[in-house]
Amino acid sequence: MGKLWQKGYDLDSLVEEFTVGNDYILDQHLVRADCAASTAHAVMLNSIGILTDTELVAVKDGLVSILRESADGLFAISREDEDCHTAIENRLIRSAGEAGKKIHTGRSRNDQVAAAVRIHDRAMLFACIEAGLGLAEGLIELAGTNEFVPLPGRTHLQKAMPSSVGLWAGAFAEEVLDGLVQLWGTYRLVDQCPLGAAAGYGVPIPLDRELTARLLGFSRVQNNVSYAVSSRGLVEAHLLDGLDHICIMLSRLAQDLILFSLPEFGYFGLPDRLCTGSSIMPQKKNPDALELVRAKSASVSSHAARIKAVLHALPSGYNRDLQETKEPFIAGSHTALQCIAVMDLTVRSLEVHPENTVKGFTPDIYATDAAIELVSGGMSFREAYREVAARIEELGDRDPVA
Amino acid sequence: MGKLWQKGYDLDSLVEEFTVGNDYILDQHLVRADCAASTAHAVMLNSIGILTDTELVAVKDGLVSILRESADGLFAISREDEDCHTAIENRLIRSAGEAGKKIHTGRSRNDQVAAAVRIHDRAMLFACIEAGLGLAEGLIELAGTNEFVPLPGRTHLQKAMPSSVGLWAGAFAEEVLDGLVQLWGTYRLVDQCPLGAAAGYGVPIPLDRELTARLLGFSRVQNNVSYAVSSRGLVEAHLLDGLDHICIMLSRLAQDLILFSLPEFGYFGLPDRLCTGSSIMPQKKNPDALELVRAKSASVSSHAARIKAVLHALPSGYNRDLQETKEPFIAGSHTALQCIAVMDLTVRSLEVHPENTVKGFTPDIYATDAAIELVSGGMSFREAYREVAARIEELGDRDPVA
Amino acid sequence: MGKLWQKGYDLDSLVEEFTVGNDYILDQHLVRADCAASTAHAVMLNSIGILTDTELVAVKDGLVSILRESADGLFAISREDEDCHTAIENRLIRSAGEAGKKIHTGRSRNDQVAAAVRIHDRAMLFACIEAGLGLAEGLIELAGTNEFVPLPGRTHLQKAMPSSVGLWAGAFAEEVLDGLVQLWGTYRLVDQCPLGAAAGYGVPIPLDRELTARLLGFSRVQNNVSYAVSSRGLVEAHLLDGLDHICIMLSRLAQDLILFSLPEFGYFGLPDRLCTGSSIMPQKKNPDALELVRAKSASVSSHAARIKAVLHALPSGYNRDLQETKEPFIAGSHTALQCIAVMDLTVRSLEVHPENTVKGFTPDIYATDAAIELVSGGMSFREAYREVAARIEELGDRDPVA
Amino acid sequence: MGKLWQKGYDLDSLVEEFTVGNDYILDQHLVRADCAASTAHAVMLNSIGILTDTELVAVKDGLVSILRESADGLFAISREDEDCHTAIENRLIRSAGEAGKKIHTGRSRNDQVAAAVRIHDRAMLFACIEAGLGLAEGLIELAGTNEFVPLPGRTHLQKAMPSSVGLWAGAFAEEVLDGLVQLWGTYRLVDQCPLGAAAGYGVPIPLDRELTARLLGFSRVQNNVSYAVSSRGLVEAHLLDGLDHICIMLSRLAQDLILFSLPEFGYFGLPDRLCTGSSIMPQKKNPDALELVRAKSASVSSHAARIKAVLHALPSGYNRDLQETKEPFIAGSHTALQCIAVMDLTVRSLEVHPENTVKGFTPDIYATDAAIELVSGGMSFREAYREVAARIEELGDRDPVA
Repeated sequence: MGKLWQKGYDLDSLVEEFTVGNDYILDQHLVRADCAASTAHAVMLNSIGILTDTELVAVKDGLVSILRESADGLFAISREDEDCHTAIENRLIRSAGEAGKKIHTGRSRNDQVAAAVRIHDRAMLFACIEAGLGLAEGLIELAGTNEFVPLPGRTHLQKAMPSSVGLWAGAFAEEVLDGLVQLWGTYRLVDQCPLGAAAGYGVPIPLDRELTARLLGFSRVQNNVSYAVSSRGLVEAHLLDGLDHICIMLSRLAQDLILFSLPEFGYFGLPDRLCTGSSIMPQKKNPDALELVRAKSASVSSHAARIKAVLHALPSGYNRDLQETKEPFIAGSHTALQCIAVMDLTVRSLEVHPENTVKGFTPDIYATDAAIELVSGGMSFREAYREVAARIEELGDRDPVA
Repeated sequence: MGKLWQKGYDLDSLVEEFTVGNDYILDQHLVRADCAASTAHAVMLNSIGILTDTELVAVKDGLVSILRESADGLFAISREDEDCHTAIENRLIRSAGEAGKKIHTGRSRNDQVAAAVRIHDRAMLFACIEAGLGLAEGLIELAGTNEFVPLPGRTHLQKAMPSSVGLWAGAFAEEVLDGLVQLWGTYRLVDQCPLGAAAGYGVPIPLDRELTARLLGFSRVQNNVSYAVSSRGLVEAHLLDGLDHICIMLSRLAQDLILFSLPEFGYFGLPDRLCTGSSIMPQKKNPDALELVRAKSASVSSHAARIKAVLHALPSGYNRDLQETKEPFIAGSHTALQCIAVMDLTVRSLEVHPENTVKGFTPDIYATDAAIELVSGGMSFREAYREVAARIEELGDRDPVA
Repeated sequence: MGKLWQKGYDLDSLVEEFTVGNDYILDQHLVRADCAASTAHAVMLNSIGILTDTELVAVKDGLVSILRESADGLFAISREDEDCHTAIENRLIRSAGEAGKKIHTGRSRNDQVAAAVRIHDRAMLFACIEAGLGLAEGLIELAGTNEFVPLPGRTHLQKAMPSSVGLWAGAFAEEVLDGLVQLWGTYRLVDQCPLGAAAGYGVPIPLDRELTARLLGFSRVQNNVSYAVSSRGLVEAHLLDGLDHICIMLSRLAQDLILFSLPEFGYFGLPDRLCTGSSIMPQKKNPDALELVRAKSASVSSHAARIKAVLHALPSGYNRDLQETKEPFIAGSHTALQCIAVMDLTVRSLEVHPENTVKGFTPDIYATDAAIELVSGGMSFREAYREVAARIEELGDRDPVA
Repeated sequence: MGKLWQKGYDLDSLVEEFTVGNDYILDQHLVRADCAASTAHAVMLNSIGILTDTELVAVKDGLVSILRESADGLFAISREDEDCHTAIENRLIRSAGEAGKKIHTGRSRNDQVAAAVRIHDRAMLFACIEAGLGLAEGLIELAGTNEFVPLPGRTHLQKAMPSSVGLWAGAFAEEVLDGLVQLWGTYRLVDQCPLGAAAGYGVPIPLDRELTARLLGFSRVQNNVSYAVSSRGLVEAHLLDGLDHICIMLSRLAQDLILFSLPEFGYFGLPDRLCTGSSIMPQKKNPDALELVRAKSASVSSHAARIKAVLHALPSGYNRDLQETKEPFIAGSHTALQCIAVMDLTVRSLEVHPENTVKGFTPDIYATDAAIELVSGGMSFREAYREVAARIEELGDRDPVA
């Protein structure tokens, strides 16, 4: 059984390998989504009289079997299938005969892929938001537990003014939450059903696009059939950009934890089970997971850039280039999700060492407060600043928790 | 009169040039915003008894003078001033004396810059949304006027199925509107007032942060004082990412117009006043503006990437690195705004040539419809597809507007 | 048998999955290189008296077996092994006993990985240069065969002046060759042997680094042991940047071929076996391979960017972040190699249609020549330009091959 | 006096502003280069009989005047001129009359710009290599002076094994030198003269391209006239990629210096004249210049990316998009040059504090050496590793300089 577009000549084998790429592997991520979309499409075809009731049952049974096999890791997609869509259709034709052939009525591989991708994107979006909320919760707990643990506040990485572990952790919590608000804003873009757009120019069949959309849990049909196809990639870029902002926060938190868990600071400690060792240095306990969060978080930007580079200046209508937006989205979103999960675990098991954080409270950290006290006494800030700068050594010890 | 932090030793001149960079030039964009923020801060200082009524009047008068000069292009910021904030403060001290010195009470250059930048960002956000709405309107008008003008629908850039100029233009209109929805989502992030955060660790003065925020039109105070400072750059990256998505759409529209206004297609025409000539080829009329939209739109991504590269893995607290987020934001947002404006102008003056679009309706463009007709007659789509593929030559002429 | 650094506590399973990542899959690319490096290291250890002759034989036999299995696709690397280096060492210990344990003397996983990666990089560099030379040859043949086939020369994508298929193809050939010169320039950086650097601080054992380097075909030892470790990633970024430049050329050639094989131009034709069809439009023959070259070539930039983002501002000494440079290099270099191969095939099977290229020679294409003729008659170029611009319609037909 | 291509209709003012962009400002960087190229072109035109001796003298005198004014900062380029090429030609026509008009014979703005840009690029390349050699020298001196100053060698940023300031500084020196070798490799690409290519299709005039190339110090003529024009941007991307690699090294050195000059380490000290202060914290001395090296060095990547994004998938022949490669190259190369200079100054004035570096030599730093001693006694490395890991506390103090 052949490809959806088979016409009777052979494709050069190098070109075949090149055009299929990793799709047949990546598409394991899309099997569930395509089965859902195919079921909804079949129900709709039945509602407008194109599939008989018997045919619909055969199609549904076939799709359920595929879902079961997929859940058990048994649904194979071969390189010859090209992608999950062909694999599913071929399989349906074997189990449901003519009904299986009719399922492609009123749709093209373009809207079929667009729909499966959006359903998958939506699931990733929800998973990332849930993970992000978990991380925010972990940070807020950390901030609450350590609200009054003094921490040297830094600017230019140097000690500057009194701060607290609570303020430090709370800053990251707010950053995650802002990131999630932004990410949630992309849901409205994801929440549009492209089915019915066919190859971007509709089909002369009275499809009930509202029904399909409703069955798949989308709030609305994507109105313009050309945009339904050409918006592929754009949605993925939006989502990755949102995740990228959260990843920037993760990289900064990782950097802080790597630095401040060094013995030279000793503010934080990482439990053994989050660290690995060295093959040559027996004494080492390395914060590998945090280093990898720092490194991997940077890759989300590059995955988003890869998608945007594909989209830039593409002419209208479906172009095969769009296939190349799938891999970076899957790679980028899984990386972000993993980084959030690892940081959540880290935050929840972080050891705070108040005996070390308090050691950072040397006299100079009170210089600004001293200047402000002079201001309260009537001096202008500029003069108080110069006064304190000149007498920094005279600042006595203060109690950071006072 | 010196820098805000002057202490009495000389900075190496190379280092001074390097650290100041273009700030003293770029900051012309921020003068209005800083004057607004300084006024609000002064009113608040007066409300909590730090500035007397007389001092407040002196400060306000000074700021109003600066605004007037700035509006007339007469407010100079010298390299020695470093940035607009120092220039404004130095000027205030000259005009308002002691009151001018007191204005820096309860704020640091960090929250001062953060506030000015947010006020500026907010204005750019509004300007871009307004421009984007104008472009969407232009596209919708184009779509409406040409709703029934037939246009060969393409996939893989090749003629595929019947479409219309209306469908084509409408797809871009929906894309702009989706982009604007996304961009608007960043307003919530922008809409937080950082004033009162000082250097990221607050000040031991009972500032009325709510009052300052309200005076400046922000819906809320940015709660965590450390995040208020470290979120600089992040807001700018969010905004540029939003603009980037709109720019991707512009690049595709530009590409379509460049291609389809070629004599070989002739679908569209560009008025003379949007084209330039060649220095050596007298016959040429070149779509330079569209080519530059194609090229410049790609730069918004790189400006956003530049900001994110600065933010990645920065340790907590203010770091001077953040200064480097200003230039790419100003460059990127102005580029996006200009590209939108140029495309708006282009769309509104675009000539559509139906006599040429209709020529593209060769028999093969009806193949899919033919296959679907066979399907209505009871054949499965897969078989109809093979049937039509084998007899493509026999498809007779059809009327595209029928 | 455990990890190289196993110390007796359990790593959290999420952290283990995160830190191992895809290494155990990617490392199939490095098995040959590590076996080569391990063999050279063993021979050197034997030469300085650390491995006995018998032990050396046992180690060599073990490595040869691994190479054989790897060539047959039978050498498995499990997730528990973490990477190929552990898998190879564990396997050696099983087959060679004590000798297998001694192989890690005088090296760390850091220099071991650095060496394997450089050997692999070197092989990819050679493969890409060879493929690039093939492509240049194909382009030069195409240029030679079609030296006098007239082609409208374009600027701003519009017809400008007379050109030829030979000139057009020759431009791409020169671009590839310039790219290869540049790529070859990176060979000097690759051609340095890091073995002996251990964890970046050497070992107090009198290793014969020159011998190891010579055995592995490197021209020189990488002198500074810290740089030997920290230059990981840098070499890969250099190589990808070189490939990126070739890929930019491929994207432009692909764009030209996609455009000029459209029926509206008809200059070029693509054989069926390089094209795929549509699942809904029976008449279509799509240039998918070229579209994918256009899209995939853009990804090489993003893979290089991903490496550089990891390297930026890393503190000295090995950091786990460096692991993240492996995947983008393998992905980027394979993509570039594939794109070159596909373009080579395309160029060699390209059909040139002189009957269509000649149709583009409308009168206006001779305008510059006409102006220059006036100049030869004594007129200044600026005046000739204005003269011709005013009388463009009067330019008669000329023969493009005259 | 008008634009080179003026034909008698007015360009929309928005489009004019958009298409001119910053060219008229940026082009101050190209005035010298264009005068040089114009002089060479004029000498060649005289040699083939197109310019008379008198005309040549008039042209040369005019160009020399422009060079003098430019050196004094007095040569203005107005927005109406569009760019330096028009400004120079307009000025020549005013001073040299007919001869000034004839200078454009046999060239187009395309090859004229390409030549000026290459001459400018070449000068930047030399300036960067010279600056890089200076930095390498500074690092080698630092390494020499501190060859035996012990420094804790780190992996994962944690103390790992004994190292020295000499080894540390030497690693950066080798990295710069490798970067310069790579950068020098791009000289061969820059060293080709595009003049004579006109608009990419040559001119029917027997220009002596070898003469022009020789006069301008280029080793060879760029053979293919189409490639001479389309290689614009490519050369700039190559150069920026080379500079980017040096900038990655700068960012790492900056990061090390920021970290290890913190009081918590105290390894290094920065002189006052390289540091700035805080507007609110009188006690602060901040390493602003190093933070800006860290941030600005990251921007070179984004400038290179901006150029490549413009080039990707451009159709053959000159496209106006290429104009957008000028700004990022000028910005990126100047940034790199400045960062190198600032780091050179920093390295040469760096204070090393051996009394602090030696404090890092705690017992655990000798663990690997201890394991290797056990290996010399006959134990396998794996077993020695486990032995030392179990008894890490027992390692006594050692003398790091022994």
